[in-house]
Amino acid sequence: MTQDTTPAELEQALAAASAAAPAFGASEPAVRAGWIRAVADALDAASDELVPIAMRESSLPQARLTGEVARSTGQLRMFADVLEEGSLLEVIIDTADAQAKPVPRPDLRRVLVPLGPVLVFAASNFPFAFSVCGGDTASALAAGCPVIVKAHPGHPELSARTAEVMIEALKTAGAPDGTFGLIAGFDVGVTALKDPRITAAGFTGSVPAGKALHEIAVTRPEPIPFYGELGSLNPVFVTQAAIDARGKDIAGGYVGSFTLGVGQFCTKPGLLFLPTGHGLQEQLVEAVGGVADAPMLNDRIKDGFSSGLDRLEKVDGVRVWSAGAATLLQTTVTELLARRDEILEECFGPVSIVVEYDGIDQLKQAVEAFEGNLTATLHAEDADADLARELLPLLTARAGRVLWNGWPTGVAVSWAQHHGGPFPSTVGSIHTSVGVTAARRFQRPVAYQDAPDAVLPDVLKDSNPAGISRRVNGTVTTDEVTR
Amino acid sequence: MTQDTTPAELEQALAAASAAAPAFGASEPAVRAGWIRAVADALDAASDELVPIAMRESSLPQARLTGEVARSTGQLRMFADVLEEGSLLEVIIDTADAQAKPVPRPDLRRVLVPLGPVLVFAASNFPFAFSVCGGDTASALAAGCPVIVKAHPGHPELSARTAEVMIEALKTAGAPDGTFGLIAGFDVGVTALKDPRITAAGFTGSVPAGKALHEIAVTRPEPIPFYGELGSLNPVFVTQAAIDARGKDIAGGYVGSFTLGVGQFCTKPGLLFLPTGHGLQEQLVEAVGGVADAPMLNDRIKDGFSSGLDRLEKVDGVRVWSAGAATLLQTTVTELLARRDEILEECFGPVSIVVEYDGIDQLKQAVEAFEGNLTATLHAEDADADLARELLPLLTARAGRVLWNGWPTGVAVSWAQHHGGPFPSTVGSIHTSVGVTAARRFQRPVAYQDAPDAVLPDVLKDSNPAGISRRVNGTVTTDEVTR
Repeated sequence: MTQDTTPAELEQALAAASAAAPAFGASEPAVRAGWIRAVADALDAASDELVPIAMRESSLPQARLTGEVARSTGQLRMFADVLEEGSLLEVIIDTADAQAKPVPRPDLRRVLVPLGPVLVFAASNFPFAFSVCGGDTASALAAGCPVIVKAHPGHPELSARTAEVMIEALKTAGAPDGTFGLIAGFDVGVTALKDPRITAAGFTGSVPAGKALHEIAVTRPEPIPFYGELGSLNPVFVTQAAIDARGKDIAGGYVGSFTLGVGQFCTKPGLLFLPTGHGLQEQLVEAVGGVADAPMLNDRIKDGFSSGLDRLEKVDGVRVWSAGAATLLQTTVTELLARRDEILEECFGPVSIVVEYDGIDQLKQAVEAFEGNLTATLHAEDADADLARELLPLLTARAGRVLWNGWPTGVAVSWAQHHGGPFPSTVGSIHTSVGVTAARRFQRPVAYQDAPDAVLPDVLKDSNPAGISRRVNGTVTTDEVTR
Repeated sequence: MTQDTTPAELEQALAAASAAAPAFGASEPAVRAGWIRAVADALDAASDELVPIAMRESSLPQARLTGEVARSTGQLRMFADVLEEGSLLEVIIDTADAQAKPVPRPDLRRVLVPLGPVLVFAASNFPFAFSVCGGDTASALAAGCPVIVKAHPGHPELSARTAEVMIEALKTAGAPDGTFGLIAGFDVGVTALKDPRITAAGFTGSVPAGKALHEIAVTRPEPIPFYGELGSLNPVFVTQAAIDARGKDIAGGYVGSFTLGVGQFCTKPGLLFLPTGHGLQEQLVEAVGGVADAPMLNDRIKDGFSSGLDRLEKVDGVRVWSAGAATLLQTTVTELLARRDEILEECFGPVSIVVEYDGIDQLKQAVEAFEGNLTATLHAEDADADLARELLPLLTARAGRVLWNGWPTGVAVSWAQHHGGPFPSTVGSIHTSVGVTAARRFQRPVAYQDAPDAVLPDVLKDSNPAGISRRVNGTVTTDEVTR
């Protein structure tokens, strides 16, 4: 997969995904869950083979990549579990009501069905968790959609080998041919995105690429949903009380978070807001100075980081506190507000900016300077509760995940997770790319009106044969339904 | 409101909605529910005043319009109930798990929050239920979003008076100023759609207008979700067994459905597929001949119907079975497949086409000829179960609501309803414009990580003070949470 996919190969992938869609989409949830678990098992079994390829292609260390495989396969199994439990299908049943006003109500049974083949644009910075076998793929497969991944050129061999493992596992488990496919090449990806057989797309990457692909997806003759995770600054705001209580922990946690994975996380804290007179400069500089040199993912990202860093360092009012394997910059809220567009631009890599604020009003001004972000973090103490209650709505308005006394790097995979935020951090901010509800991006509802049990899918039958969770006349239950 | 909104008035409406958004969005669910009920009560109280205005402006009869007010106010109360019950907020809580693999999991609490001011483009054919006080407005208010409605020019006085009643009710009940506003004028609507303070838009209307507005919304510098209900043919397929069992009822039901409201329903059955030799021509023609003449909504729609009808009647292979107050056309599947684009084009008004099919294979070919629709209907008998199980997936792939032995006109407002379908019937087919889940269009998730009860919104607190339904560690419950 170091070569671009040929037009004939792309046509084959699209035709196969399209042909697989009805059977894969109509598969019983428990059967589909089995196929997804087979993929997880195969990836775990291949971990010892895949991780060295990933190390070579991404320059990321073994422990991180091994953990990433476990995260990815755990994610697949989570979706399989929820698919089997039934909540992923969001079944809602309203039985007929002859007395309803102003008119009698029919029997209505709603279930989420798959959209059809999904195109996933893989990211470079998580060669497993946001790439071929990542969250977009896992959630789309759980939804019942065949998936075609457009490989990231940063790890071509890993992409190809991961896809082989997945395809083999699906085939052995009995999933339809064409359930999963891999393509490569920028223009190939664009061609696929325009193809009428593609019904939705997921993307993780840069703002310009995401915006361009989004525009293609939504202005096609038949527009399709495009879920793009673009860029995020992930500001962290620290109160004086928090500094007083645990300033050193905050300094250490911050440097650890913004240099994790060589700063190549979409949730990297790009700015740390500290009260003037925080007294942490020395410790911060020392911690940053202790960061070991490590290679970046690839030359394109390294070059982008170099030029971004160069640009940031030259912004008026931005000072360099420490430069080495990682860079720590410093400015003030007054200077940030004067040059907002220059300072509030993501620089992907091991750099972050300490921004000093002078009093609560400036802290609020700083919060309000931000557009949409994946995360926003507040470090505060119990004594700050009033301030926190005032700040949290402002943070909520600007972020998809709001953290208390934590660090934004690390995105837990669970029911309640939300990984997404107001534009420009994502396009499609009402959806998440991580967590159980990520599957919804690839499902649409269908309501059956007055259909008898004999023709309904099992999940909608009165007897609820699989015992799944359903909302019946407003209440969630696993009970049978009486017409 | 016979004049376009001036730029100064538009600016005032947008500024007021934007100013209202934080307070309205942060209002306690029970308080907001009270405001919404106040609107419903005020509209019911004003029904005797509003209905005559609607009759004059829309030419629709009193009974229909009185029922539509009740439908609209019932819809508002349904949203108020669900908001209070809590399911509308979709709270999901995953408590911390120090043992989670590969890494410990934090406490995550997710809730849906309002997007912000919503712009609603009102429709003409339901002066209440899909206009100023319609489903888009009700669901956006329930979500916590201020609403600006762009009035439909077909009923300007009704729009203005309805808005006055709503604004007065909201003010008296204590909702923030700017929670609701009304604007008028095509260009004014476009200007509003481009305004950065507008965060989402709903639309019900024609395919060309919907496509044009969609493109504006999704290609703004900050793209916003656009939910458009555009057009639908709503085919009805009838088996031989159904004809044998109740042919006359089907003929009568069909004519009643396609001429209801002078055929001005987005769910009008535009085509009825009957087996060759159905023997219903005489009865159908008689029923259509008995339809009383009635005025259409306005001259623009009347002219559109005239030219659409003229076009349809001239298509090769289409024959006129009955022409009068309502028109019944006839063709065959063979002819339809030969001129698919000409025959499968919505003609808004009292016309429908009987399409005769010859055997099951042709019936399937007919089903597969359709693109996305709001509804698809099958009339069949118990003996057809095998055929029905084969057809239902094909209908499901093409429609948002699949009816059994019913008629698509009439869209019940309930939890399980889905009013939406694959493109081109809607843009945004993963969402509904009717039913409880319509509110989701105007909500985005936010997850709070490790935040203490003291700063969390009440709905996320351990103690669950309002006793709402929440998904806690995967299971829906009203129980308290233990950290």
